Amino acid sequence: MITPVEGGITAPAGFAAAGVACGIKKAGLDLALVASDRGASAAGLFTTNRAAAAPVTLSRAHLEATGGHARVIVTNSGCANACTGPLGGEHAWLMAVETARALGCEPEEVLVASTGVIGVSLDIAKVSAGIVAAAAALDPARHQAAARAIMTTDPFPKAHAVAVETRDGVFRVGGMAKGSGMIEPHLATMLGYLTTDAAVAPALLQRALAEVCDGTFNAITVDGECSTNDAVFALANGASGVEITQATHDALVEGLHAVALELALGIVRGGEGATKLVTVCVTGAASRADARRAARAIANSPLVKTAVHGGDPNWGRLIAVAGRSGAAFDLARARVTVGEVVLFADGLPFDDRAPAAAEALRLPEVTLGVDLGTGGAAESIVWTCDLSAEYVRINADYRT
Amino acid sequence: MITPVEGGITAPAGFAAAGVACGIKKAGLDLALVASDRGASAAGLFTTNRAAAAPVTLSRAHLEATGGHARVIVTNSGCANACTGPLGGEHAWLMAVETARALGCEPEEVLVASTGVIGVSLDIAKVSAGIVAAAAALDPARHQAAARAIMTTDPFPKAHAVAVETRDGVFRVGGMAKGSGMIEPHLATMLGYLTTDAAVAPALLQRALAEVCDGTFNAITVDGECSTNDAVFALANGASGVEITQATHDALVEGLHAVALELALGIVRGGEGATKLVTVCVTGAASRADARRAARAIANSPLVKTAVHGGDPNWGRLIAVAGRSGAAFDLARARVTVGEVVLFADGLPFDDRAPAAAEALRLPEVTLGVDLGTGGAAESIVWTCDLSAEYVRINADYRT
Repeated sequence: MITPVEGGITAPAGFAAAGVACGIKKAGLDLALVASDRGASAAGLFTTNRAAAAPVTLSRAHLEATGGHARVIVTNSGCANACTGPLGGEHAWLMAVETARALGCEPEEVLVASTGVIGVSLDIAKVSAGIVAAAAALDPARHQAAARAIMTTDPFPKAHAVAVETRDGVFRVGGMAKGSGMIEPHLATMLGYLTTDAAVAPALLQRALAEVCDGTFNAITVDGECSTNDAVFALANGASGVEITQATHDALVEGLHAVALELALGIVRGGEGATKLVTVCVTGAASRADARRAARAIANSPLVKTAVHGGDPNWGRLIAVAGRSGAAFDLARARVTVGEVVLFADGLPFDDRAPAAAEALRLPEVTLGVDLGTGGAAESIVWTCDLSAEYVRINADYRT
Repeated sequence: MITPVEGGITAPAGFAAAGVACGIKKAGLDLALVASDRGASAAGLFTTNRAAAAPVTLSRAHLEATGGHARVIVTNSGCANACTGPLGGEHAWLMAVETARALGCEPEEVLVASTGVIGVSLDIAKVSAGIVAAAAALDPARHQAAARAIMTTDPFPKAHAVAVETRDGVFRVGGMAKGSGMIEPHLATMLGYLTTDAAVAPALLQRALAEVCDGTFNAITVDGECSTNDAVFALANGASGVEITQATHDALVEGLHAVALELALGIVRGGEGATKLVTVCVTGAASRADARRAARAIANSPLVKTAVHGGDPNWGRLIAVAGRSGAAFDLARARVTVGEVVLFADGLPFDDRAPAAAEALRLPEVTLGVDLGTGGAAESIVWTCDLSAEYVRINADYRT
């Protein structure tokens, strides 16, 4: 059984957090620590962007060097430390060294993340001072400060936690994330951190994280852009005394999933200029890959996203995007729904139902359903937001 | 030698055109004929959208049935005849039959195109009456009316023509196109028609058309959407007496290319909400496919397009999109230019040059250059426009 609990990223036992202002951003918290009081299994998933930033490269190397162990995640916001040459790699390493010194662990037990402006070097003196201050402030009660300190232009912090009851006892999963806000006015970065006090072997944790991300952090999109700094981390410190075995593996995945989904949907709700949460549900696909391909194409289509923004039940755009997505598609058996309303089925439109569909589009949460008509059983869900003039203003007019 | 000439689609000898109002649109010309006074070789390229509209299916079948011969292209605007079930197929066929009767040719010698609202059936009585009226009005002088009659919300008609001088004599190439404007408020359609009075065998014409389209109609994007009705046609009637041989094949391709490029750039300039023509030039790619992939990703990136709109020399977005495009990419050797200004090279940013780059972005035509740094010699150019709040307004607020 899974029950939401208070406490965000530090809801699991043995975790503490802190968020401080070290002066990288013009104002506000900009340095966060999330630390376990003991060694923890660690897993990570990183951006597939070939222009990966220095902290991504470093954190990946640390997970490899330790075989999946870590004590702490250090994050600065306001500067992505991306496209910064060899100096960027040195700065990321110095963040690990400074954090390790403050916490009394090895630098390789530190996972490093940065988010903010691309192509600007870190002011490492400020960051180092921030690390020292944050280490002194570490406290389980400071999870909200940590969640705020990783934000860039996110409209709100994103945190969630659950308790998972198994026959072997109760463990907790906590998490925090930041999403797609523009950064001074450079590229957005998604960061998602999960903690648990279950005891999980590193390989198992990595597998569970990958499984969970596929339907959560990897199933959302704001504008189809993939950052140089995206990272998702999981730490499992065993402080609950519950050891994850074959019998309780599903409970771990469910717990991680519950937190990750809430965080992921928070990222979409807080997408730039977003006014609606849109669930794109593709069914009847010949394969899972086809289903995901069509769902992603629909979720990233500017014509679909502007139609949703304008409350226009424009099912022709959904058909057209599904048709161009590369997924197997049979127009004569395809089906489009907006909310509960079927607007196109068996090759024929039902335009008289447009007013009912327009009604559904007025709600803050909208489901768009497309059956590809192949008769296949594969399906996929992707979450996105609408595309508003505000998105253009945020991204075009920042410096003007 | 290639020289621009007046006359648009009817600049080549033996072609006539007409545009009439038959009442499909609320107002304005909405039915066009482009006809050769004799049999012509014909070639076509069609949307890859699996939800292809009825006229696309019919025109493809006609080109196959005749082995690449046609007399006339009939086009209605205001209704796409897409997603209209079996009745849609009947209506497309009736357009061919009516046109053939009016011109005294076989229905299979008629190429049919429609553009406008998806999912609404054609008023075939109005269209038939329009065909009769247009056939009676056919005249080489009426090329502008034809170019206007295929428009939907295009801000201006697109037409161009050239004379091509070869050692065997002079032939002409003419053309007209419509672009990406929203339609009542459904999906946009690109239509491009080319005529020539050179004599070209059908297979050769098809090959030349494919070659030309790759760098023109297929190298542009407004919003990454591919319509259900896209079609490009070429007609070659031989009226100039110049026969295209191995020796003059290049001249044919160059003539077609000159007209197609001008039309394609016109489509981008008239893109929805567009204020700038953007040339995305990718070099240093490992393969031609990689170069095109990266160029398309950049040209469709909402973050790049909003930055251009806002005049922000945000080279980090170009790096980030190149890195996520799937193309082989070496950050340490990559290079980004805006206009003539190098903003990133050999892994290092040159942010002090941002003001000069911002200056370049103020011009109505902007070139963005990205070298992928692989050392490969492959390159690709894709043209696009900026993304403005006006695009969102056009596509979101149509019915509200």
